[in-house]
Amino acid sequence: MTEPTIQDLLHTLGRQARSASRQLARASTADKNQALRSAAQSLRQRQEALLVANGLDLAAARAQDADSAFLDRLTLTPESIDAMAAGLEQIALLPDPVGEITGLARRPSGIEVGRMRVPLGVVGIIYEARPNVTADAAGLCIKSGNACLLRGGSESLRSNQIIAQAMHTGLSQAGLPAECVQVLATADRAAVGALITLTEFVDVLVPRGGKGLIERITREARIPIIKHLDGICHTFIDASADIPMAIRVADNAKTQRYGTCNTMETLLVHQDIAARVLPELAQRYRHKGVELRGDEATCRLLEGVIPATEADWGTEYLAPILSIRIVPSLDVALEHIARYGSQHTDAILTNDWNNANRFLREVDSSSVMVNTSTRFADGFEYGLGAEIGISTDKLHARGPVGLEGLTSQKFIVLGSGQIRT
Amino acid sequence: MTEPTIQDLLHTLGRQARSASRQLARASTADKNQALRSAAQSLRQRQEALLVANGLDLAAARAQDADSAFLDRLTLTPESIDAMAAGLEQIALLPDPVGEITGLARRPSGIEVGRMRVPLGVVGIIYEARPNVTADAAGLCIKSGNACLLRGGSESLRSNQIIAQAMHTGLSQAGLPAECVQVLATADRAAVGALITLTEFVDVLVPRGGKGLIERITREARIPIIKHLDGICHTFIDASADIPMAIRVADNAKTQRYGTCNTMETLLVHQDIAARVLPELAQRYRHKGVELRGDEATCRLLEGVIPATEADWGTEYLAPILSIRIVPSLDVALEHIARYGSQHTDAILTNDWNNANRFLREVDSSSVMVNTSTRFADGFEYGLGAEIGISTDKLHARGPVGLEGLTSQKFIVLGSGQIRT
Repeated sequence: MTEPTIQDLLHTLGRQARSASRQLARASTADKNQALRSAAQSLRQRQEALLVANGLDLAAARAQDADSAFLDRLTLTPESIDAMAAGLEQIALLPDPVGEITGLARRPSGIEVGRMRVPLGVVGIIYEARPNVTADAAGLCIKSGNACLLRGGSESLRSNQIIAQAMHTGLSQAGLPAECVQVLATADRAAVGALITLTEFVDVLVPRGGKGLIERITREARIPIIKHLDGICHTFIDASADIPMAIRVADNAKTQRYGTCNTMETLLVHQDIAARVLPELAQRYRHKGVELRGDEATCRLLEGVIPATEADWGTEYLAPILSIRIVPSLDVALEHIARYGSQHTDAILTNDWNNANRFLREVDSSSVMVNTSTRFADGFEYGLGAEIGISTDKLHARGPVGLEGLTSQKFIVLGSGQIRT
Repeated sequence: MTEPTIQDLLHTLGRQARSASRQLARASTADKNQALRSAAQSLRQRQEALLVANGLDLAAARAQDADSAFLDRLTLTPESIDAMAAGLEQIALLPDPVGEITGLARRPSGIEVGRMRVPLGVVGIIYEARPNVTADAAGLCIKSGNACLLRGGSESLRSNQIIAQAMHTGLSQAGLPAECVQVLATADRAAVGALITLTEFVDVLVPRGGKGLIERITREARIPIIKHLDGICHTFIDASADIPMAIRVADNAKTQRYGTCNTMETLLVHQDIAARVLPELAQRYRHKGVELRGDEATCRLLEGVIPATEADWGTEYLAPILSIRIVPSLDVALEHIARYGSQHTDAILTNDWNNANRFLREVDSSSVMVNTSTRFADGFEYGLGAEIGISTDKLHARGPVGLEGLTSQKFIVLGSGQIRT
């Protein structure tokens, strides 16, 4: 009887979310901002209860031998709770995308046609045991006028429920329905399967987490998804690149953080500049403990480089490992990126105007960069204020997805009695 | 052996389309326009061959007892061939959306972040036996920089192949690969199943045709879809509407054409104005042979109205039938549209500023109108130049989809050596 019960639960939550989303869609900016600020206040007031709940989550996870990275993501502190609250207050300061009318123009028939930005409706978010995502995601959904169904890793359920209470307090103080934010209060893993097929009540899914989770959701979901699977990011050092700049940027793109999706995994270097940049770069990487794997030419140029296999070019290491290939031309670099890249973020370092323009136009990735570090691919760095995720898909939103990506534009037509003849 | 052969064929076509799409994505506007104009010329030159091929298609369809509406859609004439060619020339005149850069702004880190509009890649279009769609769809895809795989109804295969030859002539005269436009030259119905799961090579599907076809594709496709299923369009006559205007517009919305997706199927009338608009409207509808079905109040007000059943409110008649409901308020009208509508096109007729604004904001449809006919929901009328289809989905493009809907925006980041700290 587990399966039907979960279906019923999700159906009820979905129906409530749909109904709440209609009220939230027409809420004023002031009311939404008040909900966010009150939720932040309520979160700070619940600090003690939240730390207790989080302590229980942590104890249960430890009893199941969770590893330290897992426990680290799950752990809340007074500081991280305050950061969550401050995050909600920052979302309140962002401009409200809902209701914006653009492009209104009169047509020969006399009607005026434009577009109005509107919420998507109900957003389902599936993520790992990271309680801070609960507040972030709920905050972005409230501001963009969307109800949300939140399914965090079951190991964080107690923490998530307290955070949801704070969101509910904020919503009700602004006169908005608590059902705008609902946490799936079940550890049953079948809940994910039910959520991703709830076509009647959920408009979009945002899966965040490991590749296995996202692959499963992509395969089984019957609802559109905003997601990215891999971040196999490239930096191409063109023949004309400024050498100190190229070394500084290629170093940063790999070593500023190893485990993020916008970290460079493959360095492509034009053969005419390789001997002038790679030795110093290799020294820097090795100094930081980065393992180097290279094609034949790289192995000839640098000592102690491990020969790269075909699999290396298609691997997101998320670790201090870098693959390096020396290429004869921009065209070969573009071919390499088209073949092995994941359409996430790729950069060219160059002083050549034409090559920069060709790279910008021809690389089919969600972020394409000239003379800077792939590590900048981020909603905050792009000025979106916050991000619900990064999309490498081609429809709707590409790259970091903020408030605007949680909305779409409908046509509005203003007439004065025109008929079609 | 049929099944593997179709898979292999599609895989080959898909790989060719992907490769061609990369060349087309970087083609100049001038080259794309030349391809369109040369294709138009080639189409006119092939008029005779095309009429012969179409005659064979028609003879085969007649032998299979196709009905007259089907034969009508399949039939080409010298005039309709010229109209296809003129359509391609009109697409050449539209602005090129590809390469447009918007919102470029400097961030505190010093990087400049903006968005560049780029083609989606490869578009798969599945449609009925309507040869003119072959030219229209291919033209829109060429202009927006997308390769396309075209699967028209198998009864139109001979006609479609001649049209594809004309497109190939145009493409090669502009120095572009013929594989930008490929017609699936097989009558095997398994080709649709293979096309809609070709995730590696196809970026988006546009199914056009009957509801059964679109439901099947929605269920089975593993690729994002731009589509609409139903057009259950409403007009709400508010209490304050101008009476002659309301009668003129509500008449037009139903009777200008019966078989189109933007035709009104349900008329909602505020109770305070019903007695002043419905009798004259009913007379007009009946004069044109429209069958009226109504709720209780409508049946009391008008003689000879058939009582509407629950099923009527959710039916797209595509025929001279109209359901009518008298409602006590705007709120009930909004509830009705939310419950029974198909998020296609809905209109309010009113002189009340607040009600107009609430309707515009709260009706969650791809086109929302004030004081005009739902029949205006159309790419040409909206100034998009042409449309590849209409979307009632919420992500990416809503409403009529033209060149812009066949593109998306990637982020571009311009730096001068910035690194992330």
